[in-house]
Amino acid sequence: MSIEHTVVLNTARSPYARLRPIPVSAVQLKDGFWRPRCAANAAAGIPQQFDILKARGLLDNFHRVAAGEEVITQEFFFRDSDLYKWMEAAAYALLDGDAPVSAIRAQLDEVIDAILPAQSDDGYLNTFFGNDPTRRFHNIAVDHELYCAGHLIQAAIAHHRVTGERRLLDAAIRFADYLTTVFGPGLRQEAPGHPEIELALIELYRETNERRYLDLAGFFLERSGTRDAERFEGHAVRAAYCAAGAADYVLETGDEGWRASLERRWQDMVRTKLYVTGGIGGRYHGESVGMAYELPNQRAYAETCAALATIFWNWRMTQIAGEARFADELERTLYNGALSGVSLSGTHYFYINPLTDHGQDEGDPWYPWARRAPYQRQTDYACNCCPPNAERFLASLPGYFASTSEDGVWLHLYDAARIDWWLADGTPFSLMQQTRYPWDGTITITVEPEHPAEFALYLRIPAWAQAVAVIINGAWADHAAPQPGTYLALRRTWQPGDTVTLALDMPVTLLEADPRVPETRGSVAVRRGPVIYCAEGVDHEGADVRRVRLNAAVPFTPHHEVDLLGGVTVLDGAGRLPESEELPETLYAPRGARLPVDLRPAALRLVPYYAWANRGPTSMAVWLPLDEPIRI
Amino acid sequence: MSIEHTVVLNTARSPYARLRPIPVSAVQLKDGFWRPRCAANAAAGIPQQFDILKARGLLDNFHRVAAGEEVITQEFFFRDSDLYKWMEAAAYALLDGDAPVSAIRAQLDEVIDAILPAQSDDGYLNTFFGNDPTRRFHNIAVDHELYCAGHLIQAAIAHHRVTGERRLLDAAIRFADYLTTVFGPGLRQEAPGHPEIELALIELYRETNERRYLDLAGFFLERSGTRDAERFEGHAVRAAYCAAGAADYVLETGDEGWRASLERRWQDMVRTKLYVTGGIGGRYHGESVGMAYELPNQRAYAETCAALATIFWNWRMTQIAGEARFADELERTLYNGALSGVSLSGTHYFYINPLTDHGQDEGDPWYPWARRAPYQRQTDYACNCCPPNAERFLASLPGYFASTSEDGVWLHLYDAARIDWWLADGTPFSLMQQTRYPWDGTITITVEPEHPAEFALYLRIPAWAQAVAVIINGAWADHAAPQPGTYLALRRTWQPGDTVTLALDMPVTLLEADPRVPETRGSVAVRRGPVIYCAEGVDHEGADVRRVRLNAAVPFTPHHEVDLLGGVTVLDGAGRLPESEELPETLYAPRGARLPVDLRPAALRLVPYYAWANRGPTSMAVWLPLDEPIRI
Repeated sequence: MSIEHTVVLNTARSPYARLRPIPVSAVQLKDGFWRPRCAANAAAGIPQQFDILKARGLLDNFHRVAAGEEVITQEFFFRDSDLYKWMEAAAYALLDGDAPVSAIRAQLDEVIDAILPAQSDDGYLNTFFGNDPTRRFHNIAVDHELYCAGHLIQAAIAHHRVTGERRLLDAAIRFADYLTTVFGPGLRQEAPGHPEIELALIELYRETNERRYLDLAGFFLERSGTRDAERFEGHAVRAAYCAAGAADYVLETGDEGWRASLERRWQDMVRTKLYVTGGIGGRYHGESVGMAYELPNQRAYAETCAALATIFWNWRMTQIAGEARFADELERTLYNGALSGVSLSGTHYFYINPLTDHGQDEGDPWYPWARRAPYQRQTDYACNCCPPNAERFLASLPGYFASTSEDGVWLHLYDAARIDWWLADGTPFSLMQQTRYPWDGTITITVEPEHPAEFALYLRIPAWAQAVAVIINGAWADHAAPQPGTYLALRRTWQPGDTVTLALDMPVTLLEADPRVPETRGSVAVRRGPVIYCAEGVDHEGADVRRVRLNAAVPFTPHHEVDLLGGVTVLDGAGRLPESEELPETLYAPRGARLPVDLRPAALRLVPYYAWANRGPTSMAVWLPLDEPIRI
Repeated sequence: MSIEHTVVLNTARSPYARLRPIPVSAVQLKDGFWRPRCAANAAAGIPQQFDILKARGLLDNFHRVAAGEEVITQEFFFRDSDLYKWMEAAAYALLDGDAPVSAIRAQLDEVIDAILPAQSDDGYLNTFFGNDPTRRFHNIAVDHELYCAGHLIQAAIAHHRVTGERRLLDAAIRFADYLTTVFGPGLRQEAPGHPEIELALIELYRETNERRYLDLAGFFLERSGTRDAERFEGHAVRAAYCAAGAADYVLETGDEGWRASLERRWQDMVRTKLYVTGGIGGRYHGESVGMAYELPNQRAYAETCAALATIFWNWRMTQIAGEARFADELERTLYNGALSGVSLSGTHYFYINPLTDHGQDEGDPWYPWARRAPYQRQTDYACNCCPPNAERFLASLPGYFASTSEDGVWLHLYDAARIDWWLADGTPFSLMQQTRYPWDGTITITVEPEHPAEFALYLRIPAWAQAVAVIINGAWADHAAPQPGTYLALRRTWQPGDTVTLALDMPVTLLEADPRVPETRGSVAVRRGPVIYCAEGVDHEGADVRRVRLNAAVPFTPHHEVDLLGGVTVLDGAGRLPESEELPETLYAPRGARLPVDLRPAALRLVPYYAWANRGPTSMAVWLPLDEPIRI
């Protein structure tokens, strides 16, 4: 394996990148927060998803194309991409020390053996449109052919970077080369309806140094119509993939117009269209972000793929300039709106991530592919985009921990982990993080350059931190007070064995939303560190926790429960719950005319939102109404 | 004119109808609430809409079909129905004493002259599918051909009933006859995607006594799949039209299965899917009712057509059994969710009826046909279903005032009006209502049978009434206490000149919603009589009234304003408003960390919801947060 190259984003030669991600293979997770999740993904989720995709006939589709069948009937026209995303997941999983590597390797080879013979001589490859060239590219605004191509290319790059093999990469290159003969100036002028190919082509440009891939990506981006957009809008996943692709384009070209466009759309997203969990997509219709402040909780769409998409976008923004606001948002989404999409077992997924649910959902006949009764995590979905997308992201997660720059090393994510890599000048170094993060805000970092070396260690000080202390080799560091929401630069000559302790105050914080968000009025969301909490009925004698009243005068007490939900810090507080579960028969009644709703004092226990719905169907609420007048 | 037959629903021979509507022409509106609205509709709205429809080429489409053009390109495939609905409106408007009758008559004739030559020899008529018979009925689940046919039939029946002419009715009969040769047992087995034809065919059966029309309606209903439905769901207008058609079917057949189905769906609608305004359709996607309690205020769809559709449904339910709950819901919708769709001028319409709006709407790119920025009433819409639908309903409104039964007369709606009709035994009678309803709950009814006659006068006692008094000829009536939510039967030998005074207590009532409705938590809606109120920014120095806090300890004072909004009773109360309009820059912030939001005591003035947005773009809110802890 050629572990030096297993980066999820290769900005080593990107002229407008300040940062260069450190590869997946250079980060070894220790027994902290993420290792069990990545292990469950690699050891259970990925092998299981292979069986599911195979049983659904996704490999057969390729066999049938290879055998010359003209039309392979499929429910959706983007099925191939499920398999490609799984391949990317499987490739990264080969780097996971907890993974059944040989089994996954065999599965991967089986898939590649199925795919390659199905490729047309000219490079085209798609089982829905099959062997008949006259069926290709009739409607790229809808048909996802370029989306599937993008996922093939990404899978091929990951496979090549992890295994060193070229056969899948060569197939992807043939497809990409074919695309450059179909689309572009003087050729077909359309843009794909679902962006994804842009990200893939730019990474392929980085892999091959073939400028035509970058140009084609730029061509598609230009035709996306988003360059002059003032707002972040439309289909949530598409909008964020499109933005992530544009960020890739900025990394390579420094294009100021695109940079300004990304800034406008990012601001619009985080100021008006982002759930407190980092999810996006407040509207079922068109799986879209809706209008400003359109953030319903029960009817949140907040697709898992959309959360992942903003992570991809924020990751690229982080590499451009090293501004912590992007990595802060990445962290918010990572621990909440993205992780909520995967069960603790690593085998069951959410497509939609509501912020409250009554646990006895009647299902939604309009969204049978994404939500059925009772609402709970599923191994797969009719529209199965999210499960393998979550798998590929989790398998590559170590690649999101750190970056290097000309002048040092950047730590973005905190967890028990060891990083082995090189400084820009070629000096080998190791960084060992010891921490119970996100349950505890103390991170001890041991710095081990091969020899004493002057460089800056950049530590992300999360915007949520209210007090920060930095101790180097047991002494308080003599520098300006660390500013939350920035990277703290510790610039010195580091000796092997130097230690840095970063202590982030992690109080329980009650968050209010902008008063223009209709459903959260008079309510608070509870956050500790990067983790957003929720109440679940199962912790409250089965009560409908959507009717909780929170007593904000009683502070929450954090309490670590080793045996609960894979080990979580719960928050114990006080409030009130209805005396009975009886609910009114009439939809509207004069105030006071209903049966009196007796609220009884009750202990409240909050658990991390990401861990909800791991104990069977139960009511859940992130936003908790306060037992006091509405203030804002 | 053959005014005896101008009923909007002819149950005279319907074996399972307890009630028979009194015709439009038998009800003469006096200077009360509805006359100015009906006059504006007949004198301004209907003539203006004719010009709009003509300018849009809707008459030309028929000319072009008549001239043999094969394909008439149109944005939507249901344009013809706009014109048919307008014709029904125009026909009823001929009965309105305030209408420019000869001008409307000339417009009607112009339309009929355009339509008739376009009909195919076999009876088919639709300008979108034109002259080529091979294009017909390819996809009746989508294409609205039967929906258009239904509106043609309804228009033709109204035209015939009002004018006595047959030429349009004969054309409609030819079309209906053709349909019976295409659809039915042994023929094509599909159901139309958008119900409407069922209502039309059953009324045509009533008009012609041709059983095959009833049978075909029953056939379509059977195939609608709603007979066994437990829930009221799907596209709001379609669901309610389908239910209204099934109610028509019950009126003719007494079918117990359909009756039970209607009861289940009606209960589901009023208990879980009805706005406090009577609007339905909590979801933009699919213009649908969504799931139980999915009733967002800002993102209410609550299409005007859907409100009208429930009126049509409740009207039929009322005739089946004479239960007041149906007429109560009809009244709720009439004064609020339906009337809100029409401007005071009678010339501007809402398609979507939100329950709150910020008045500076950015528009919604996903719904350009229904909502654009800034959100305000329009003369017409790209999808122009609502304006002529509202017009035909308002033009026929007098036909919803009263019914007769074997044993008496039923008053459903209260307003200054004179009714001249016959008892079941043929005795002529008049009823004069004198009232300022809905601003005042006192209604004085003068009963004028031609000669003393024993019959029951049924008065609807609205469910919202909290105290009721009945005085007959100056003396308190000696009967059981009138029960709100029922019809009070005053059975006696009525002498010419007898008077009944019905006094309905009309206190200002603060309504709470079921706690399962997410957005209304901690808020109240204000109702007085049948009228739901709202706050508008224009009455509060331009403040964003979505941020009002209501002080419920200060009672509202009703105050009639003759010159405001066409004459309305406003409600003056107290609450608080933000000191400044400054709003936060961050979407989520720790509680207390924002700039303090100073709330200043403020006088609150509420106006009827139906009258909102008649004074330019301004903020509006129906549900007002209380300045106290959330209680339920």
